[in-house]
Formats: sequence, C-alpha cells, structure tokens
Amino acid sequence: MDKFVLTEIPHANELTGINGIFRDDHLEKNTSPLAERELLHNKIVESLEEAVRLCGLKDGMTISFHHHFRSGDYIVNMVLDKLAAMGFKDLVVAASSLTDCHFPMIDHIKNGVIRRIETSGLRGKLAQAVSDGLMDVPVVFRSHGGRAGAIDKGELPIDVAFLGAPSCDPYGNANGYIRDKDEGIMCGSMGYAKCDAHHARKTIIITNHVVHYPNAPFGIPESDVDYIVNVPEIGDPAGIMSGATRFTSNPKELMIAEMASKVIFASGRFKPGFSFQTGTGGASLAVTRFLRDQMRAKEIYASFALGGITGSIVDLHEEAARSLRDNRFHQQISAAYYASPYNEGTAVNQLDVVVLSALEADCNFNVNVLTGADGVIRGAIGGHPDTAFGASVSIVVVPLTRGRIPCIVKEVGTVVTPGKSVDVIVTDHGIAVNPLRKNLKKRLRESGLPVYEIEELQRKAEKLVGVPDPIAFTDKVVGVVTYRDGSVIDLIYQIKE
Amino acid sequence: MDKFVLTEIPHANELTGINGIFRDDHLEKNTSPLAERELLHNKIVESLEEAVRLCGLKDGMTISFHHHFRSGDYIVNMVLDKLAAMGFKDLVVAASSLTDCHFPMIDHIKNGVIRRIETSGLRGKLAQAVSDGLMDVPVVFRSHGGRAGAIDKGELPIDVAFLGAPSCDPYGNANGYIRDKDEGIMCGSMGYAKCDAHHARKTIIITNHVVHYPNAPFGIPESDVDYIVNVPEIGDPAGIMSGATRFTSNPKELMIAEMASKVIFASGRFKPGFSFQTGTGGASLAVTRFLRDQMRAKEIYASFALGGITGSIVDLHEEAARSLRDNRFHQQISAAYYASPYNEGTAVNQLDVVVLSALEADCNFNVNVLTGADGVIRGAIGGHPDTAFGASVSIVVVPLTRGRIPCIVKEVGTVVTPGKSVDVIVTDHGIAVNPLRKNLKKRLRESGLPVYEIEELQRKAEKLVGVPDPIAFTDKVVGVVTYRDGSVIDLIYQIKE
Repeated sequence: MDKFVLTEIPHANELTGINGIFRDDHLEKNTSPLAERELLHNKIVESLEEAVRLCGLKDGMTISFHHHFRSGDYIVNMVLDKLAAMGFKDLVVAASSLTDCHFPMIDHIKNGVIRRIETSGLRGKLAQAVSDGLMDVPVVFRSHGGRAGAIDKGELPIDVAFLGAPSCDPYGNANGYIRDKDEGIMCGSMGYAKCDAHHARKTIIITNHVVHYPNAPFGIPESDVDYIVNVPEIGDPAGIMSGATRFTSNPKELMIAEMASKVIFASGRFKPGFSFQTGTGGASLAVTRFLRDQMRAKEIYASFALGGITGSIVDLHEEAARSLRDNRFHQQISAAYYASPYNEGTAVNQLDVVVLSALEADCNFNVNVLTGADGVIRGAIGGHPDTAFGASVSIVVVPLTRGRIPCIVKEVGTVVTPGKSVDVIVTDHGIAVNPLRKNLKKRLRESGLPVYEIEELQRKAEKLVGVPDPIAFTDKVVGVVTYRDGSVIDLIYQIKE
Repeated sequence: MDKFVLTEIPHANELTGINGIFRDDHLEKNTSPLAERELLHNKIVESLEEAVRLCGLKDGMTISFHHHFRSGDYIVNMVLDKLAAMGFKDLVVAASSLTDCHFPMIDHIKNGVIRRIETSGLRGKLAQAVSDGLMDVPVVFRSHGGRAGAIDKGELPIDVAFLGAPSCDPYGNANGYIRDKDEGIMCGSMGYAKCDAHHARKTIIITNHVVHYPNAPFGIPESDVDYIVNVPEIGDPAGIMSGATRFTSNPKELMIAEMASKVIFASGRFKPGFSFQTGTGGASLAVTRFLRDQMRAKEIYASFALGGITGSIVDLHEEAARSLRDNRFHQQISAAYYASPYNEGTAVNQLDVVVLSALEADCNFNVNVLTGADGVIRGAIGGHPDTAFGASVSIVVVPLTRGRIPCIVKEVGTVVTPGKSVDVIVTDHGIAVNPLRKNLKKRLRESGLPVYEIEELQRKAEKLVGVPDPIAFTDKVVGVVTYRDGSVIDLIYQIKE
C-alpha cells in the first residue's frame, strides 16, 4: 500500500516532467571511492569497434570529424578503415575540414564506404581525385561559420561524431592539451569539435591520454560525450604546423605583410582596444609580426585577437595578458560562437580588422581560396567569408602573380567570398580598395599608400604573365560551394582530361 | 541570367542544408569599428517591457529565474511586478530556487498573474502561504540535478528565462562577477542559469554592469542570449551570505562538524586526490574548517571540491591551487553537468564524500530538508538527493533535537532524500551508519567513534523531548516533491488551521 496516490494531486495534468511514483527497488548507489570508480564505472570502451556498435551506426548515416590536428591527423583514416572493415556503406563524412593526409579516403569512396563528403576544404590527392570526378554526389563546401550554423539549426544532422582529443578523463571531459605534460600531439583549442560533440546523436572521444577526473577546465564537457576509446596514437605532432599554418621567410610574402600592416595603421582602426584576426597563409600570419612592433611602440593593447594556433598571436596575447589579470582572456570558443551567421554577437562580427589570404581575387573583389589556376580543388574555405563579412575592415593579401599565374584576374575561377564583403586587396604591386568603401579609400590614399584601381592591378598582372588558357571542364558538378547561410555561391566542375 | 542553376547538381536531393542560390542584394556589411558597433548594433533593449514584448511572452507561458543572488535577489520581484503591470496571467514560474525575499509573489498568485511554481525550495511568508493553501495547483519541488535533467530532456520547457548577471557585454556574454572592479552584487558562478540560458526559447539578461566586449571568460555565452536589459540594481550584496550559507559559531554545530570530519578521516576516503562537497547549513559548512587543518597537516590535496560560494572551500582551493598550475581547476559548470541524473559522468557521481544538512532524518535514513516540525514548508531540496546518491559516502549532519523538537524520528514528515542513498548520520549524541554499509560501519566502529543503531538515537531523542503531537493537515496537496528522475517521492499537504 503506497503512502499516496498521484490522483490526489489537483490539476496534475498541468504538471510536466512528473514520472510516476518513486520506488527505491532499483536505487543502487555506487559506493566505491573516486579512484576506484574511475576504473570501473566510466565511458571507456574496449575498442573503436565496440564504440561504433554501441552508437548504433548504420549504413547511410552521417559521421563527423574535426581538423584540429591538421595534416597530422590519424583519426579520420583510423575510423574509416575500421568502418570499412566492419562493412559499412554509403556513409556521409561531415568533417570540419580535410587535408592531404586523408588521401586513403579515395579507396573508401571507390569501395562505396563513403557516399558523400561535407568539408571546409580538400587538398592533395583526394582533392585531385574529386576534381577528376571520383564521386557521384558532389562535395559540399561550407565555411566554419556556415557549418556551425547548419549544425546548430539542424540542417546538418550528425549521427556519430568521432573526435580526437589529446587528453580525456574517464567520463569524457576532453582537452586539446595535456595538463601535466608537454608530449604527444596538442592542438590547444577544440573549438571546431565543440559543435559536433554538442549536437551529434552520439559522440565518441578517441584519445591517447586518459587522465584523472576532472580534466578541467574542459574543451569538451563530459555531458556531451557518450564513449571513449583509448588508442596509442591519434596524430603526428609534426603535422600540425605544416601546411596552412607555416611561418614564412619568403621576401615577397613579408613585403605584402608589411604593406598590409601599413593599411591597418592607416585604416583608423589601430587604436587601443582594437580587435583583429589573421588567417592562415604565409603573408597573412606574418602581418602579426609587424603589428606587434607597433603595438609595443605605441603601447596599444588589443581588445581581443581571434584565431587558432599561430605562435605570433600567442606571443602578443602573453604580452597583453601581463597588463590584464592573469590569463582570463584566453577563452576557448565553439565554431558557432566564433562565426555562426545566425547571431548578432558572433565573434567575427566584433572584429575591427581581418587579414586573409587568397588563391586569386577578381575585379569585383570576389575571392577564391578553393580552386587553383588549373581548376583543381586545393584549399579550404575556413573562416574566410565569415570574417570578411564580420570585420569592419577585411584585407586580402595576395601576390599579383605566382610564377606564370596571375592572381588578380577579371573573374575568379570559384567565388568563395563575395566581393561586397572584401574591403582592401594588398599585393606586392600595390593596393586596391573596394569602391563601396569611399572613406577608407580616401584615408589610405591620404596616408601615401600606393592605392590603385583593381582593374589597374589586373592589367598589370596580365601584362606580366599574360592570360592563361581557359580551363577545360566537363559539365559534371563535383563541388558545391555554399555561402555562410547555406545558399550556393558557386559550383566546381570536373576537370576534362 | 545566373552563372549556374541548382538543377545541374547531381543527387541534389541528398544534400541537406542547401538554401537556394546566393544573392548579394542584401549583403550589407557593418563597417563601423568595434568601439562604435558595440553601441549601435547590440542586444541591449530600452526596457524590460520591450524585452518581454520582443520575446513574445503570452499568458500561461513558463518563465524561469536563477537563485544565485539568494536572499539578495531583486530580479524575480522586478520582473513579476512588470509582468503584472503588463497584464500577464497564469504564468508558470520555474525558478532554480526561491527564498524569503520573494514574498511579493503572494499578491501575484492571488491576482492570477502566477498560476503555478516550480522550485527547489520555498522559505518565509511565501512558503507559509503555500502551506496554508494559497495555490490551486501544487508547487513542484525538484532537486538541482532533477531540474537540470528535466530541462535538458525537454520535460520542463522554458519560454523565457530572465537571468540576472553582475556583468554582461553588449552581445550577452554574462558573468557572475565584474572583471575590473569589486563592487555591486557578485555571485561568482552562474551554473544554475546556464541550463536556462541554453534551453529557454528566449533568454533575457538583466544586468547592472554593461561591460566591453568580450566579457571573457563567460559564464553564459552570448550565443545563448537574445536580449539585454540594463538596470540600476539587480540585488543586495548583503543578501548572498545570509540564510543557507551563513557561517556558524554555534558550539553544538561545531561539535557535530568536528565529529563529521572524524567520520571522513576514518572512512578510508581521506587520501590524496579525494573529492568532497559540503552542503549549506552551519554544521555542514563548518566541516570544511576541520578538513582543512588535517589536509594541511597530512599534505593531502583534494582532487576537486564541488559547490558554490562558501568561503572555506575557496580558501582550500587557493591552497591546493598553489601546488597545481595557476587556477586551472576553477571550472564553472552547469547544473546539468553538476548533478543531472542522466549522465554517468555527472560531477556528483565523482564525489568521495558529501556532508549534508537536514531538518530531520528517520529510522529508514530518509531525510527531510523541506518541511518543518510544524509541517510548514521552510527549506529547499538543493542538491541533497543528487549528491547523497552520487557520493561514495554521504554524511548527514543533524542535531538530535532542536529546542523541544526531535530531529531523529520514526518517520520524517516529508521524504526528500531516500534512505537508501544516505550512509551516515552524525548527531551531537552519536553516529548511525546505514545497515546497507556494513564495511563502513565496521570501519567507523573500529576507529572508536560513537556508533549507535539509528533506533537508539531516535529513542534518545524521544526520551529528551517526547513525541510531538501529530500535525493536522487537510487533504489538499500543496506541494509535489520529486526525486531526481521526476518520480514523485512525497506529497506536501495544506496545514489545517
């Protein structure tokens, strides 16, 4: 006989979240001490295979990955090899980005394990194969902000996220570094993985360092994690600094970087509290060095600097931090917080200045960061359109020519960032300012900077290296380039052999 | 004529999140510098009224509040007065807790502005009025973990969250303190508010300090915030330390606290890396002081300590922090992360020891923290059942009697925490160990601690103060006490006059 019955409760139908009458039959406390229960009751599973089974992965489902390990990533290949061995087919791979180390995906595509891909970019053999028509379904390219926004809005639903983490406790608190030692692959921020962990139906952390609870402060909270797999290695530390995040000693890139820094000084934005981001790429990263000297000289402390793992920005941060309280400014943010198009307060919208690279730019200020002069995919959208739109002043740094290839052209091969959001183009032969930005143009001219019309720069490039032969494409679409809101801004076609 | 048409895309029907063809007609960049755009484009609205209108609040909807300002809170009354003036009716108030400063709600209940209440607890005049049958629909009481779990699972849907914050930037990054100054009301953590901000259909931050972007590191991220209202005052700093979080100098409480610390030392859990939490209440908070001395003497550093704003724990933290790296352990967690019943890795599940207060406990080890000896509501569930269940050893500290009232009884008036999850009861007349915990009982006996059967303690109490007259109730249910999973563990009835 119960002490009471639920029908006694007046207006019970209005009470939500009332789940029957309490019974203590199944109330079994775990009475072991923390040190023991960590070992016995946790989210660690025997193997990747076991984790996949527990997640209920099925053919045709969408799996996701982050790209924080850049070219040093072992996770994507490890997982896809396992899923292929387990017999899965028709999977959708939704990676935050893919790079040259992911060429083994080619076989998995050929064998039907992978049906389609979503990514920020493609490089190397995989990019070449896709451009050559490898896939039936075109690759969807999204910016970092566009991807995060699509995940947040449910337009890119993820079934299982496979997220590599340099450290993780037995319950899933995961980090991009190891608190107690400096070894193994470390990516610092886990920002691109945060959206995946939070929204995926199931999240698996793959780590090479299981540490004691609590692995705080956490990049990914355990509440977003279902299973943990412990493996010997998750990546090659040497691979993180390769590729897009290298440091330059190229004199042309340094010259462009110095010119870009002069644009910043003359832009009216270089004041105490200004905020900036530099993208990846030699000239772009190098701008930070020139900023640094002036920031020191003029005692200008930035309000904040956005962006990942570049050493020069970290240096600036350390310096600014001394005048603030400890390291409180070091905030790890998710990709949605960083760049989602659906939020007024997104971090990219707070930028005074962004400096971005380009493969080519055109007379409408459109920028291509995705396909080469040969029409082949060889890059990544990244946060390019997000930051170009968000920043008060967006500066694209690009040489006028690369070898025999003009980089300022009449029309870019692939539009990634629309010209309306690009304000200044800085080349080694001069600067062009978007005609929409009259005040800025005037200001830069008055500062004595070499300001030209964009058409003048284009003609100068043409004069130097001529007009390349048009690229021959088939009519098969191999890539769909989306803008931040998921609208299609351009299509990429198969290269004709 | 467009450059391409979407029908060219093979298998287009498989591509999710593709939203038409990009057009730049509406692409208007915000070109003002950060310092200006903060002022012009932000989430700050003119008034609370305006924010309410923008949120589309309607009669019958659910609004939520946090209780981080404890008895110093101005937000609940401010908002309800405004909503009453705007003519709203039948609202559901889902607060993380309510306290004695919220008595003005009585009028709003009488006038039909508030139809029902969800909370962790009630105190003072409001609690008395509810016990006297003020409301048609009974109040639903949930533990902190139960509430967070219900919000996470969608069982407690929130339409508009009204969240007070001591600082907030123009985009909604909100914190429980002000980074640059030590003034005004400061609550430190915003943990209970994080769930609300994240899951509410609309979130309004009410602040008295709008600070510059970025207010990092943030307690609540701007991505969870819709509108910001700037008001002169949000709370009374003096009110935070009152009530449940006071420090004791009561000799009986100190004696119980010392005995509880001896139980901890003898429990086999007091080892390097042990984890603990103390609840609110004089004796419970005082335990930390006794732990501290032994931790220093034995050089035991805790793995982590859970819990809010108690000065003694902060002191211990500071000390431990010196042996670690800076303050990296200071992690602000959400209520779901803290105590949700739906997650193996929830922080309460990692506790070695918790020390909890009680109004009364009974011979089945059931604990009541909600109704007084007169049957009137006068407390809060808090994290009591969450931590009692989660911790390896849960210790309830309670005097044998309070004045003429026995606190160890045959059956508690209201069951809040089920006996199966309570391990040790410490009184000023001896200790009782749950018979389910045989090893622990043996261990404490062997340490020479005064261990009794719980019935012996009950009889001792009865001998001292006799058996109080039974309380006269009507058959009207005024409160529904839920366990962590939303099951009903007890009912609270109207007091007969």
